[in-house]
Amino acid sequence: MGDDRQLKRVRLGVELSSHTPQPEMVVAGAARTCYSAKELALSADELTPQLASKIITRVVQRGHLSVLEHASFTFAVEGLSRAASHQLVRHRIASFSQQSQRYVEFTALEYVLPPTIEERTELAEDFARFIGSAQKLYRRLREAGVPREDARFVLPNASATKLIFTMNARELLHVFTLRLCSRAQWEIRELAHRMLELCYQVAPTIFSLAGPGCRRGPCPEGDMSCGKPWVPFWEE
Amino acid sequence: MGDDRQLKRVRLGVELSSHTPQPEMVVAGAARTCYSAKELALSADELTPQLASKIITRVVQRGHLSVLEHASFTFAVEGLSRAASHQLVRHRIASFSQQSQRYVEFTALEYVLPPTIEERTELAEDFARFIGSAQKLYRRLREAGVPREDARFVLPNASATKLIFTMNARELLHVFTLRLCSRAQWEIRELAHRMLELCYQVAPTIFSLAGPGCRRGPCPEGDMSCGKPWVPFWEE
Amino acid sequence: MGDDRQLKRVRLGVELSSHTPQPEMVVAGAARTCYSAKELALSADELTPQLASKIITRVVQRGHLSVLEHASFTFAVEGLSRAASHQLVRHRIASFSQQSQRYVEFTALEYVLPPTIEERTELAEDFARFIGSAQKLYRRLREAGVPREDARFVLPNASATKLIFTMNARELLHVFTLRLCSRAQWEIRELAHRMLELCYQVAPTIFSLAGPGCRRGPCPEGDMSCGKPWVPFWEE
Amino acid sequence: MGDDRQLKRVRLGVELSSHTPQPEMVVAGAARTCYSAKELALSADELTPQLASKIITRVVQRGHLSVLEHASFTFAVEGLSRAASHQLVRHRIASFSQQSQRYVEFTALEYVLPPTIEERTELAEDFARFIGSAQKLYRRLREAGVPREDARFVLPNASATKLIFTMNARELLHVFTLRLCSRAQWEIRELAHRMLELCYQVAPTIFSLAGPGCRRGPCPEGDMSCGKPWVPFWEE
Repeated sequence: MGDDRQLKRVRLGVELSSHTPQPEMVVAGAARTCYSAKELALSADELTPQLASKIITRVVQRGHLSVLEHASFTFAVEGLSRAASHQLVRHRIASFSQQSQRYVEFTALEYVLPPTIEERTELAEDFARFIGSAQKLYRRLREAGVPREDARFVLPNASATKLIFTMNARELLHVFTLRLCSRAQWEIRELAHRMLELCYQVAPTIFSLAGPGCRRGPCPEGDMSCGKPWVPFWEE
Repeated sequence: MGDDRQLKRVRLGVELSSHTPQPEMVVAGAARTCYSAKELALSADELTPQLASKIITRVVQRGHLSVLEHASFTFAVEGLSRAASHQLVRHRIASFSQQSQRYVEFTALEYVLPPTIEERTELAEDFARFIGSAQKLYRRLREAGVPREDARFVLPNASATKLIFTMNARELLHVFTLRLCSRAQWEIRELAHRMLELCYQVAPTIFSLAGPGCRRGPCPEGDMSCGKPWVPFWEE
Repeated sequence: MGDDRQLKRVRLGVELSSHTPQPEMVVAGAARTCYSAKELALSADELTPQLASKIITRVVQRGHLSVLEHASFTFAVEGLSRAASHQLVRHRIASFSQQSQRYVEFTALEYVLPPTIEERTELAEDFARFIGSAQKLYRRLREAGVPREDARFVLPNASATKLIFTMNARELLHVFTLRLCSRAQWEIRELAHRMLELCYQVAPTIFSLAGPGCRRGPCPEGDMSCGKPWVPFWEE
Repeated sequence: MGDDRQLKRVRLGVELSSHTPQPEMVVAGAARTCYSAKELALSADELTPQLASKIITRVVQRGHLSVLEHASFTFAVEGLSRAASHQLVRHRIASFSQQSQRYVEFTALEYVLPPTIEERTELAEDFARFIGSAQKLYRRLREAGVPREDARFVLPNASATKLIFTMNARELLHVFTLRLCSRAQWEIRELAHRMLELCYQVAPTIFSLAGPGCRRGPCPEGDMSCGKPWVPFWEE
């Protein structure tokens, strides 16, 4: 009853809330600066999207990835577990603004339910009951005067968080290499997949290069390989 | 009973497990390179500890902090809550190796107990009981075949973690500025204090500069100031 | 004669070629995420520019600068000496694409003339003659089959370069702190000033905070202070 | 005559002036933290060099390179051209202290002579004469009251510089991948080679992994490949 109001199972939400306008034109313009003696084509009349695409493919094939750093992408994410966010924030070439458990009061605990638990009803019920007891204890501690930063000690990894983060295209390709692999945690893999869908729409040449190591050569996981090379959604 | 074996309240442990040998000589030698036309004093006969100390004080006062980056410090920490480690790993100019909840089985849950809960017996008992229920559910999920990466969703922020991390002296001064402030979370403040004690022993000139903003000017927290300027332990 | 075609004194050109659209809305949105329990206002109907401005001022005053990292700015610069670019690329939280002296042939040497030399005719003439001799030797080496990467050894620091670089607003404020100071090299100071003019137009709240240390307190240069506190152009 | 005193052709000097003591023990200890539930082996009785070597090989093969960041190496370099140092300082995950041309007076110009010029006597003579004219003009400008930061505009890329820099083992492997390639500039390739020799002595397991891309798979330079896979000196 009251519990229904105070517990809420949530699902991942991902938005590309901002990005460098015309990211591929910016990247290609930067690449031309490195190798050309011509004037910086600031107005860049001759730089068409087709030419930009060609330039990007060429420099990336040569491994000159630094030009990709000029294109930035900002994501707004909600419904992500603290377990997953702890992994995400370990990427250091990125900027994160995460909902604080020290400043925000958790009157209604939102949580993420892993599929391996959801599919077994009795486990899922125990799980929900446990989340409920965490919420109850949190509230009791707060009412007893315990500060938020200490009351949160009872919040589980399943607690959902919200965050806004910015990464450049080079770091995004790196993130996709690690996190689209079938051996990555299911939740961060889903996040990576959703991010890639959004990026691919605005910069298809750059992000057509995305994917785990198996897309570019033999699986780097060796004897722990899943054996099924990753296929991008645009080739499915 | 069995619970006693499987639950364990732990306390913070901090060791300085490695560091650049003679850190102040290295830093002072680097500072001399920038400003002197003399040969690089690689053998550096004339560079005494006293001279090194003088050089460091001078360059730091002028705000030339980059030379401090040549001295690295590696810490081994255990008994830190996941709540605190989540804050710590947000420092990006640092290298972290943290015990993984995906790879390590938590047969005996170690947890951190905040003082504000410890001091009220009935709250502490509820807290311990809750930790016990988390441990029990974790084990039950594991026995039902749920993978570790999903079972860990029930582990609370209070769970203790272990980590090894490396920071250079410049970043350490930055960490001390933020984390020694009385408004920082109590646990990361204690960690910072213990780290400073260890650093001060091996590089007293560099780390005599450590402390929150109030040591160098007016409190930057404005109307949220604690009103009590921080005093370093060596001046107490 | 022929020399006129092959030597060219150039002046600094700075363009803001791209930036995060509505940078202050993005930054303020990120700040709200950290401190609010409310849904992420992705569509953000209630976030007006006025409210954004208020939020930014508040978080920056508290020293929470990380939210500024979500706004990126890409500059195209030409007519900058290699002496100045060597300083500029030392900023590590930034992305640079610089015209390569290994890949680009310098058929017409562009150079930067320092005012302290320009103002004394006989020095300026010697300087131009020297640049001419560098160009001549460069061409002679090239004709003798010396590769570009070695022929460039004769190119002087005065040689003009072109580059495109991207920095986020937090790093830009740091750059402005260092490079707007009257003790910075004149050329990088002019570059910083031009960059600030461009940034101020698109994000006036964020960049109204820019300036050397003397804008926020006593001059950090101590006994090397110029004695004249910096005044932003919008207050002149 | 006087010229002999004031011009000096120099050669590359590289020293490993400091490093994390027992770097492979530190790295292996960090790796054990990530994957083991055991107590942090701070005293680490059981960790032998042989075991450390095995652990490092295993984690690196799996691509878990972050543990390598706990080992830092500080180099002192002299006799490097400004052309090469400009490339070197572009590595951003590193700390540099470089001799300043703004603070240091260049009474005797030290310069680097590329082999492709040295081998042709008449070119080498023209080159030396040009360096002499740069030195002469530098001195004339200084005597006329031009500040050092402007007089240096006549100093050529061939001018030798001194610097001290620190990188961790992960970044070093990245530097070696790029700079040991036969397509890298000869001087930075020589520097990388000398650095590797020094690193290999103190951490042979870690640095046995060093080398350009051709050591680990097909040449990434494509149709610009030199066709001769790199062979490490310890296998020659």
